[in-house]
Amino acid sequence: MNRAAIYHVCGGSYAFPVNKNTLRIRLRAARNDLDRVVVVYGTRYPGDGEDPYLSQEMELVACDELHDYYEADIRLDDARFRYHFYLEDVQESLWLNEKGFFEERPRGFFSGFFQYPLINYADIFSTPDWVKDAVFYHIFPERFYNGDPSNDPRGVSPWGGKPGRKSFFGGDLEGIIKKLDYIESLGVKAIYLTPVFKSPSNHKYNIDDYFQIDPHFGDLETARRMVIEAHRRGIKIIFDAVFNHCGYDFFAFKDVRQKGEKSQYKDWFEIESFPVQTDPTNYRTFANNIARMPKLMTGNPEVREYLINVATYWIKELDIDGWRLDVADEVDHHFWREMRKAVKEIKEDAYIVGEVWHNSEDWLQGDQFDAIMNYPFTYAVIDFFARNRIDAGTFDAQLAKNRMLYQDSVNYVMLNLLDSHDTPRALHFFEGNKEKFKLAVLFQMTYLGAPMVYYGDELGMTGGEEPASRGCMVWDKENQDQNLLDYYKKLISIRNKLTPLLRGNYKTILVDNIRNIYGFTRHYRGQSVMVIINNSPRPQQVKIKKFKNRGTITDHLSG
Amino acid sequence: MNRAAIYHVCGGSYAFPVNKNTLRIRLRAARNDLDRVVVVYGTRYPGDGEDPYLSQEMELVACDELHDYYEADIRLDDARFRYHFYLEDVQESLWLNEKGFFEERPRGFFSGFFQYPLINYADIFSTPDWVKDAVFYHIFPERFYNGDPSNDPRGVSPWGGKPGRKSFFGGDLEGIIKKLDYIESLGVKAIYLTPVFKSPSNHKYNIDDYFQIDPHFGDLETARRMVIEAHRRGIKIIFDAVFNHCGYDFFAFKDVRQKGEKSQYKDWFEIESFPVQTDPTNYRTFANNIARMPKLMTGNPEVREYLINVATYWIKELDIDGWRLDVADEVDHHFWREMRKAVKEIKEDAYIVGEVWHNSEDWLQGDQFDAIMNYPFTYAVIDFFARNRIDAGTFDAQLAKNRMLYQDSVNYVMLNLLDSHDTPRALHFFEGNKEKFKLAVLFQMTYLGAPMVYYGDELGMTGGEEPASRGCMVWDKENQDQNLLDYYKKLISIRNKLTPLLRGNYKTILVDNIRNIYGFTRHYRGQSVMVIINNSPRPQQVKIKKFKNRGTITDHLSG
Repeated sequence: MNRAAIYHVCGGSYAFPVNKNTLRIRLRAARNDLDRVVVVYGTRYPGDGEDPYLSQEMELVACDELHDYYEADIRLDDARFRYHFYLEDVQESLWLNEKGFFEERPRGFFSGFFQYPLINYADIFSTPDWVKDAVFYHIFPERFYNGDPSNDPRGVSPWGGKPGRKSFFGGDLEGIIKKLDYIESLGVKAIYLTPVFKSPSNHKYNIDDYFQIDPHFGDLETARRMVIEAHRRGIKIIFDAVFNHCGYDFFAFKDVRQKGEKSQYKDWFEIESFPVQTDPTNYRTFANNIARMPKLMTGNPEVREYLINVATYWIKELDIDGWRLDVADEVDHHFWREMRKAVKEIKEDAYIVGEVWHNSEDWLQGDQFDAIMNYPFTYAVIDFFARNRIDAGTFDAQLAKNRMLYQDSVNYVMLNLLDSHDTPRALHFFEGNKEKFKLAVLFQMTYLGAPMVYYGDELGMTGGEEPASRGCMVWDKENQDQNLLDYYKKLISIRNKLTPLLRGNYKTILVDNIRNIYGFTRHYRGQSVMVIINNSPRPQQVKIKKFKNRGTITDHLSG
Repeated sequence: MNRAAIYHVCGGSYAFPVNKNTLRIRLRAARNDLDRVVVVYGTRYPGDGEDPYLSQEMELVACDELHDYYEADIRLDDARFRYHFYLEDVQESLWLNEKGFFEERPRGFFSGFFQYPLINYADIFSTPDWVKDAVFYHIFPERFYNGDPSNDPRGVSPWGGKPGRKSFFGGDLEGIIKKLDYIESLGVKAIYLTPVFKSPSNHKYNIDDYFQIDPHFGDLETARRMVIEAHRRGIKIIFDAVFNHCGYDFFAFKDVRQKGEKSQYKDWFEIESFPVQTDPTNYRTFANNIARMPKLMTGNPEVREYLINVATYWIKELDIDGWRLDVADEVDHHFWREMRKAVKEIKEDAYIVGEVWHNSEDWLQGDQFDAIMNYPFTYAVIDFFARNRIDAGTFDAQLAKNRMLYQDSVNYVMLNLLDSHDTPRALHFFEGNKEKFKLAVLFQMTYLGAPMVYYGDELGMTGGEEPASRGCMVWDKENQDQNLLDYYKKLISIRNKLTPLLRGNYKTILVDNIRNIYGFTRHYRGQSVMVIINNSPRPQQVKIKKFKNRGTITDHLSG
């Protein structure tokens, strides 16, 4: 047995409550090393006499390139757990507890049990149910639709022109309102908007006034109508919280520029020396030396209060349904904890989703975000379907590894995207191969988590790195790929209809590296969806073992 | 290379900031598997052109039975890190990043670097400096000294009698005040008191009034004098926060008992049905069916507010220096986060130490406690020195494994105890062998973390499980072990004098299972302390390699 490779800790994604008396337990071992894993458990406070030990076989639920992951749910009425593991391989059987491995079963209260002392209701990580059931539509407002030419910036370019870094095309919130019927027709249930607050740029990630809708996008009343109209159609809206940095003309930074060291806001920023200089900057900015995006010091209680006010103001004022957090991994954890608390207190099912492109365990323990924009998913999908860089096994391994980092409540609300305003268009990587692209879309719509469609992807829009990826939405029907649009609508409607795709578990059932075939099931309360993907350029036949339960089998895709 | 055994995650105790631009990195590998580990790192936002990569050899800092732990500090002016590892064993060399292992060095921003995006000041886990420099004295007030017989409970037993579960002996806060000179003479710098609030029991863990000093212990003014007098001697005082459960006559529970379902406090508890019953209980209690200790529902905002008021009230009122948290692992994490915030806001260097007997990673990430009562340390010491159950290698492994679970800021303020009011007296396990006991004390006083002495241990008090372990302090000089007392004073004074024992790192230098010898060094800013422990019953000789640096060598123990 590869003992050194076995990993379990009683916490994080390895032991977490799923309801008031059930604990989900995971254990990681070297790939193909163990034959049997059992969790043996009992209450932390047994009555007199012998402990009434219970046991539960653990199921192999995921594999990555180096590891197998086992999982089991254990349940106790009193919600007080102590447990250890029984492990078997071909040569030996061992017991594992917090102190290590033992040939004989360790006995006695002090033998070193793993302990989950009590499931407190407050510690159950619950994420918004509506997100589990939603497909998101991701809009970059300046490029979606110009619904009100009267608020256009000066020198606006004609719709559909080639986007430059500083182009304006006049898209606005009125445009979103006017196109809500279109958005609704896709079957999506939520919209994520990049920032809409006052900012001189087209992307509006350098915000000068967090309490004002950008005048080129509309005003408070336009925004209010947008949310009301969306809600009327059963569509939620989340906004973009740019709390890592502000704009150059944000009142506090302006004050510092004007008053220097005497400004009461000087500690809102990290400034090396006064006066403030911009080339090179002598203050910390987003990324490296980006003068127009001064970093906000969320360690400062005044800054925290200000930004948390922003977060709650827009929920109270407009009834928005959550926040996407820009550059979330560069803001301190204490700030996010406070923000979560404030936001959830006024809207319990608000969705908080962070922009973190890498391992996000530190933000996803229940105290900060509900999920992240799932870029690890993006990489895996592009590498498998578009670039043919990885085989089915590696594809499955990458997804599995990513899933096993988080509690399931997170996995079900992950924002699974193929692309965004920060990446090239997904189609760009497929080099025109729309059949392969459709396969990726199929996977996105059937995988575990909330799919998000970047505006226009459904019509065949493409483009490389920004600004090319931020083109004007194609409203001219002749330039829309109607076939692709129908395909998107069909896939989204299948997802919306089949509960296992929304709420079901995920189980890999077929990994064929030679034939480039991959398959999985999603199961939920007696209903299963099976997806078999032929990632090769030609038709292939696959033999599927019969479903155990008799029942109806429907081909939802071609049928 | 045992790839499956290699563990690193960019967070927790595997990557944490130690100051505003230095990140401490750890990596775990199978024991004796790797020959070389290098962390190769650079800024997350390099300028144009080639990345200026830096590298740092990682040092083997700890070993447990199955693993080696490597560590290195990496520093970047801009505090934005991306990194991967270079690993060598006898057969191969590999690169490791977030995506896995590679034979060639992965290149490019999206190759899967581990990322610590930015050290935010607020995320540096800082623990109180004074704790690093303190030896604690642990007092169970009812048994320490009867300084004011006028406040004795009725039917008090004569001092020094055999303690029963319900005995009272009259110890009180005035007694502590009167014995502060004695406490000071030991050289300790802090006192931890078990609960002092109004409660009918001798241990006072069932509190009826959190805002009143127990009348048998004194009153607000006695408590105030106690803290002032202790502070005058440079001694800090921490109190015991019993927030998991209250007493049977706590006002809110009383209200529920009287008014049943109509009580406005019914949601402060978890009650199955009304009216409240005590035998068996129909409400959740501490442990199992302990009627006089109803569990408090900290998920309820009213309860949170009430208890956090308690925590801040006593700091404001008496200027106490922190809290020990009773049954800390059965209270929800959100509550502890709020409490930490409230407490540190009014007293930044307050010490918050939880009662958790097992792996405590979930509480020690910087957002909840500063440390725990280090019972894993207790087990290891008793098993090695008293019971001879483990050899030097296992002893070292258990300590190392425990250290590697936490950031160093935690390890330096761990409360390292040989015993407490919740265990048998340490001496009890030594079956009268005081020489071996002294060895354990020597280890306690030289190990990394704050040693805590349970009142009377220094005089040779012994006793098994409670109530035997809660005997009356021996004030009669004839029954005090003066030799042991002198030894304690000497050891504490050595610790107080030698900064490496307070602030220095810990390095194992000698593990001899055959001869039962164990040695380590503590190093701090050019000064080293070496400790060699002969855990066998007879004298043995050890050859020590010369210190590299010339300098004075002093024998602090016998010298």
